[in-house]
Amino acid sequence: MNAIIKDGDRPNEGEAEKPQDVLAAALMVDMEAVNLLIRERMASRHAPRIPEVTAHLVEAGGKRLRPMLTLAAAHICGYQGTHHIKLAATVEFIHTATLLHDDVVDESAQRRGRPTANLLWDNKSSVLVGDYLFARSFQLMVETGTLRVMDILANASATIAEGEVLQLTAAQDLKTDEAIYLQVVRGKTAALFAAATEVGGVIAGAPEDHVRALFDYGDALGIAFQIADDMLDYGGSSAQIGKNTGDDFRERKVTLPVIKAVAAASPEERAFWTRVIEKGDQRDGDLDHALGLLTRTGAMQAAREDAFGWAAKARDALTRLPDHPLRQTLSDLADYVVSRLA
Amino acid sequence: MNAIIKDGDRPNEGEAEKPQDVLAAALMVDMEAVNLLIRERMASRHAPRIPEVTAHLVEAGGKRLRPMLTLAAAHICGYQGTHHIKLAATVEFIHTATLLHDDVVDESAQRRGRPTANLLWDNKSSVLVGDYLFARSFQLMVETGTLRVMDILANASATIAEGEVLQLTAAQDLKTDEAIYLQVVRGKTAALFAAATEVGGVIAGAPEDHVRALFDYGDALGIAFQIADDMLDYGGSSAQIGKNTGDDFRERKVTLPVIKAVAAASPEERAFWTRVIEKGDQRDGDLDHALGLLTRTGAMQAAREDAFGWAAKARDALTRLPDHPLRQTLSDLADYVVSRLA
Repeated sequence: MNAIIKDGDRPNEGEAEKPQDVLAAALMVDMEAVNLLIRERMASRHAPRIPEVTAHLVEAGGKRLRPMLTLAAAHICGYQGTHHIKLAATVEFIHTATLLHDDVVDESAQRRGRPTANLLWDNKSSVLVGDYLFARSFQLMVETGTLRVMDILANASATIAEGEVLQLTAAQDLKTDEAIYLQVVRGKTAALFAAATEVGGVIAGAPEDHVRALFDYGDALGIAFQIADDMLDYGGSSAQIGKNTGDDFRERKVTLPVIKAVAAASPEERAFWTRVIEKGDQRDGDLDHALGLLTRTGAMQAAREDAFGWAAKARDALTRLPDHPLRQTLSDLADYVVSRLA
Repeated sequence: MNAIIKDGDRPNEGEAEKPQDVLAAALMVDMEAVNLLIRERMASRHAPRIPEVTAHLVEAGGKRLRPMLTLAAAHICGYQGTHHIKLAATVEFIHTATLLHDDVVDESAQRRGRPTANLLWDNKSSVLVGDYLFARSFQLMVETGTLRVMDILANASATIAEGEVLQLTAAQDLKTDEAIYLQVVRGKTAALFAAATEVGGVIAGAPEDHVRALFDYGDALGIAFQIADDMLDYGGSSAQIGKNTGDDFRERKVTLPVIKAVAAASPEERAFWTRVIEKGDQRDGDLDHALGLLTRTGAMQAAREDAFGWAAKARDALTRLPDHPLRQTLSDLADYVVSRLA
């Protein structure tokens, strides 16, 4: 649920251009090479089902934010070679593979406004084509011949899977605290953002402090992004019912706003959260009541401050990098991901 | 369905020791190191569901045939280092990950005589823990620092996933021919056998002709193994109803015996196969009738000859390797996988 950066977002007249669009324009030549490589490597000589499923995903688009982060990081660090294209495609393959498997896990019916692969074909195809894309991503990174990027991306893949499993067991469990939430968020979002920016620096042969700054940026950006996403599921800072509000509530996911509200809950409020989240006994008006609690206990406001804090950390990390026009764009991106919570 | 080499197989008195037991005895010290590494790396600091699922798998045992192939190959090529332990664990991780995903795909309820993870936990856990093991396998292979083994194992992973997707679409389709069958078999079985033996040679720094011989051995062994497995699903060479007979028939899988019987079918016989396999309209007595056709058309006999042919190819490949006691054991193993078809 990338509620923040959606397909089809176009600036209205008079509105400032979005940072991801600035990024896309600046990286257009690179991204054409990345998209070509993605189409080429998503194909399969032997199994026609694979190109069917992957074409469905490729055509659905998506902003390709993660590969752009890799390209931008490489450019900021002055990279002159061509391996950043392969790494950008690798990162997108890992992302796409996790989306395919997520849809099976979440039993989703829609992704990027289109029916999911598991609905159009079956869960089997989603699992196996996801595995194929994982394997293809490893082939691509091996082609760069750089052990350290393989190490980073293998570690990120393990963190992603670990975070997803943790999320399975953390859902519907009010004992989930902010430390566990952060672990889940690092797994489901921040690990790949951080790996995406880090490998851009590594492939450019950047000094250690720059590589570390790139990791920190991706990590903080991913966390800010996910907290904002989880808040928007409750209507954003104002905690109001709006479009797509309440999906996480209905799925009994224990996200940051709920964790903070539970921590501040009276016995009566605690009984409410236990009933709707742990027992799954949800009645008419419960979502409204939850939204009221999220505002009154200050949970929404506190989560908002956390999101802005992570965005600030992301911006700070960038100050440790060489001066480059794309550095400002990445800084704007950090602001942008939390801007809808203003 | 490893119908040939099963857990709990113990030689009866007076029976010759099985080659995989000879292998296990010869590689005991190495295999203890492999098992220790597997237990260590299957764990997870953060997500307790992971060790639950993996412990269930590890305790279920299995013969660990694939890691033994890697170790044997390394020893035959005179390897003196310790990376073969990591590669053996890598190969077993890839295998275990594919088993977890296969159980989701096949909707299996039993594996190695125990309830499957997807039954004990859920499909979600099987998908995500499988992903975790894939990621862990890539971490392990990266630790060897040898690009070529990463290349081989990444390629094998892609071939496995491709073969599994191909099998999805080839099932229930009588147009599946022997070429497609071979592709599926290479994906589901032979690719990992061949990679297991090949990386053993590569890590030992063996000359190219030895590496190629090891690949050829693993490839042919895997194909012989799978053809025998598919024949045993129809009761072996005699095509009789026995224990576990007919699973593939009921699941409408188009395996080698069926492909050969369909190729030799009269119009009336063809109508029968179309009804039971393509249309899935199976009635009492159909399995018996199928077994009769498999024998009368010579399909079983022809498949048996293919299996023995691949076992002979496996043995032949070994003659291109340096002399070593384990070379004979691998040769015996090739005979063994088809011996139940005698």
